[in-house]
Amino acid sequence: MTAQAAALLAALRQCLGAEQVLCDGDLSAYEIDRRRRYHGRALAVLRPGSTDEVAQVLRLAAAHGVAVVTQGGNTGLVGGSVPDASGAQLLLSLQRLNRVRRLDAANLTLTVEAGCILQAAQEAAASADLLLPLSLAAEGSCTVGGNLATNAGGVQVLRYGNARELCLGLEVVTPHGEIWDGLRGLRKDNTGYDLRDLYIGSEGTLGVITAAVLRLYPQPRAVLTALATCATLEDCLNLLQRAQARSGATLTAFEVMNAQSLALVQQHFAAAALPSMPAAPWTVLLEVSDARNEQHAATLLESLLADAVAAGLIDDALVAQSLTQSRTFWRLRETIPLAQAADGLNIKHDIALPVSRIPAFVVQADAAVQAQCPGARSVNFGHLGDGNLHYNVMAPAGVAPAEFLVANEDAVNRRVYDLVNAHGGSISAEHGIGVLKRDELLRHQSPVALALMQRIKAALDPQGLMNPQRLL
Amino acid sequence: MTAQAAALLAALRQCLGAEQVLCDGDLSAYEIDRRRRYHGRALAVLRPGSTDEVAQVLRLAAAHGVAVVTQGGNTGLVGGSVPDASGAQLLLSLQRLNRVRRLDAANLTLTVEAGCILQAAQEAAASADLLLPLSLAAEGSCTVGGNLATNAGGVQVLRYGNARELCLGLEVVTPHGEIWDGLRGLRKDNTGYDLRDLYIGSEGTLGVITAAVLRLYPQPRAVLTALATCATLEDCLNLLQRAQARSGATLTAFEVMNAQSLALVQQHFAAAALPSMPAAPWTVLLEVSDARNEQHAATLLESLLADAVAAGLIDDALVAQSLTQSRTFWRLRETIPLAQAADGLNIKHDIALPVSRIPAFVVQADAAVQAQCPGARSVNFGHLGDGNLHYNVMAPAGVAPAEFLVANEDAVNRRVYDLVNAHGGSISAEHGIGVLKRDELLRHQSPVALALMQRIKAALDPQGLMNPQRLL
Repeated sequence: MTAQAAALLAALRQCLGAEQVLCDGDLSAYEIDRRRRYHGRALAVLRPGSTDEVAQVLRLAAAHGVAVVTQGGNTGLVGGSVPDASGAQLLLSLQRLNRVRRLDAANLTLTVEAGCILQAAQEAAASADLLLPLSLAAEGSCTVGGNLATNAGGVQVLRYGNARELCLGLEVVTPHGEIWDGLRGLRKDNTGYDLRDLYIGSEGTLGVITAAVLRLYPQPRAVLTALATCATLEDCLNLLQRAQARSGATLTAFEVMNAQSLALVQQHFAAAALPSMPAAPWTVLLEVSDARNEQHAATLLESLLADAVAAGLIDDALVAQSLTQSRTFWRLRETIPLAQAADGLNIKHDIALPVSRIPAFVVQADAAVQAQCPGARSVNFGHLGDGNLHYNVMAPAGVAPAEFLVANEDAVNRRVYDLVNAHGGSISAEHGIGVLKRDELLRHQSPVALALMQRIKAALDPQGLMNPQRLL
Repeated sequence: MTAQAAALLAALRQCLGAEQVLCDGDLSAYEIDRRRRYHGRALAVLRPGSTDEVAQVLRLAAAHGVAVVTQGGNTGLVGGSVPDASGAQLLLSLQRLNRVRRLDAANLTLTVEAGCILQAAQEAAASADLLLPLSLAAEGSCTVGGNLATNAGGVQVLRYGNARELCLGLEVVTPHGEIWDGLRGLRKDNTGYDLRDLYIGSEGTLGVITAAVLRLYPQPRAVLTALATCATLEDCLNLLQRAQARSGATLTAFEVMNAQSLALVQQHFAAAALPSMPAAPWTVLLEVSDARNEQHAATLLESLLADAVAAGLIDDALVAQSLTQSRTFWRLRETIPLAQAADGLNIKHDIALPVSRIPAFVVQADAAVQAQCPGARSVNFGHLGDGNLHYNVMAPAGVAPAEFLVANEDAVNRRVYDLVNAHGGSISAEHGIGVLKRDELLRHQSPVALALMQRIKAALDPQGLMNPQRLL
């Protein structure tokens, strides 16, 4: 270790206390990403306990010219939250910055610190009979700060929007170690540039989000789900349009799962599979959240599905008869990523398209993947209502996943992303760019937009110390 | 005119055609703002007909170091869209850039050019049985580009959000004359910094918005309104909370009007007043938009209001029995600003507060205004559901409005805005900053935020030519 690094660590220990500056022992929880694709090494793992301590850390880092990688729950899927292998970057963990600061029921807002686990924030809202609608698979371990830094999506975006739409205000520490207190719980505020939305989704490259004001909603009185099977994606899309027209904002989720997705669940988690549903090319999970009562919700859902059967859009449908059955339907959907993981590595695409382009895209993408690697299996599921597909590609049966990945990942990505681009889509709908998609971003994002982003980065982080090599 | 200015005008005529470079004649429609508080003079009024022509204009302006003020419908209320009095600024009118480029019904999106009149965009959506929910008093003459540049609000924000939330993608010409094509109709897109939201609300100071992809919704099957009278603002707030819990996203508007507002309507537009409603300290206008039918909407509204009467929250209520009666209710609300204008100049505040703080704020603000100028009349109305009040102050009866304004505007603003600040509010909810509120912005916005905004402005508009002296 250089004398300079030693001096920095000494100053950090003085500021945070020695026990919050971790250099030794097993730091793999901080240094390896969730998918275990990136193994980094930090100069130190820092665990500040207050916004002011974060500001002190960033001032020290700026003074020493040392890079800082910020981490919440380390559940990201694009390698954005672990340090590189140099051993020269500071890993700033916000796990201790986890208080619920304030719930204002009449204003429908919740103020939490960045390290607050999403589920804890959900529970704080629920304790006042209110709903924090941000909901995603990692909610038991991801943090609100990470959700905002990556503009997380999830399963209720159709009705409530992404993390961006659920955030009214931020507290941010700039790379210069200044604290911007933008924690306002306002629905309208036109007083200058939209710094809030600039920080949201910037993946820690412009500063550190330390707290946020989140938007809450009244708890719906009844949440009811149904499954329906469709022969084609066009039919799924038609069902979506009918459901939106008929139910307005009552429709809170509209998920699709292809046959291969459900076959994987059957194979690896048979208990989560649903023997009562016939296998079909596509299965839709619909959810309605009703402000009145369960009967009101059931009437809507049943009449919608009956009409869809009559119109030939769906073959079969099943309305959950209880909360337990609703959970069973959701478990089917949520088990797909776990079943994929159990099957081994796969080539993941988290893409968004105009909803109207999805059927054509999938036909073309399936053909392109088969041309590249015959027999590969498309595990295709996601949030059709948001135009967001998790279009993943698995090795053909009998081929080792790791070898398949090495041999095909780049070529498959190229084919899939070129098609996404041709249809006016996005190569990252909700997972962000991180390290994994940086090169693809350079290929697919407009050069004018990239130049604007570079200018903003240089203006706000002139030393280039915040999450370097991420995103840009 | 200098030789340099003459050369610039010659180049502009070559690029746009001489008939689209206006220097002579009555240009007051471009040079005077809607409230007639700012009288500017332009070097020339430019009327490009395409995005490419806008890019050529900005390249010429950059080469000559000449400032450009961008204008849509010139309906803004803060003096942001007219040139200054120097005669040295170019006025860029986007009125001819007014095409509807594309409607994608299955994706629920509409792509329009910036100069498209808001009402024309609404009509394009309606022609496909879809709803563009952005709706405000000036919709017959304001433009979509102006709405986005100022992040306009209006009467349906409670359900659908501001202009920001209704925009999925932008086309922008940068101050360097480059075209950023960000016209993507995606609900999710995490591929870099959120340039879209940075341009939205930046009031033309970072570049020129030339087109946008707007988010549409299925047309509701029934829209029903009701009026209710309340003794206090606390009661209005309680009614709002009940309505939100009971009706979810069906509630599309929740407006309040104080007695003074309605007295003004009665005085100046008696035909718009409602003799059947008893005078009350506060009158609420509720609107529900129902995806099913009128009966369904009426049942909800009637049961909500009956319960509110029983709970002692409201004294009286009237549910519209027809579309015509609904329009009558809205006309009452919409006539308030006209009645104010008929009464003469007044001190306007377009403020936002946490909804929970509004009752306390109004008591304190009324007291502060009376302390400053006894007998002044508070005309207080607005979008309670969004925490957005138009808290306006009129001269005492018998005092000339213009004299009152000169004598009291600064002092009243100071008292009102200091209170807004103390309650965590915003001095500009939906009108923006423009020229009118620049000094107040410097007083009330956080210095850290202002410094960040200055760095962004310098990075994206290094010559400082875009709408100079506006906003920052």
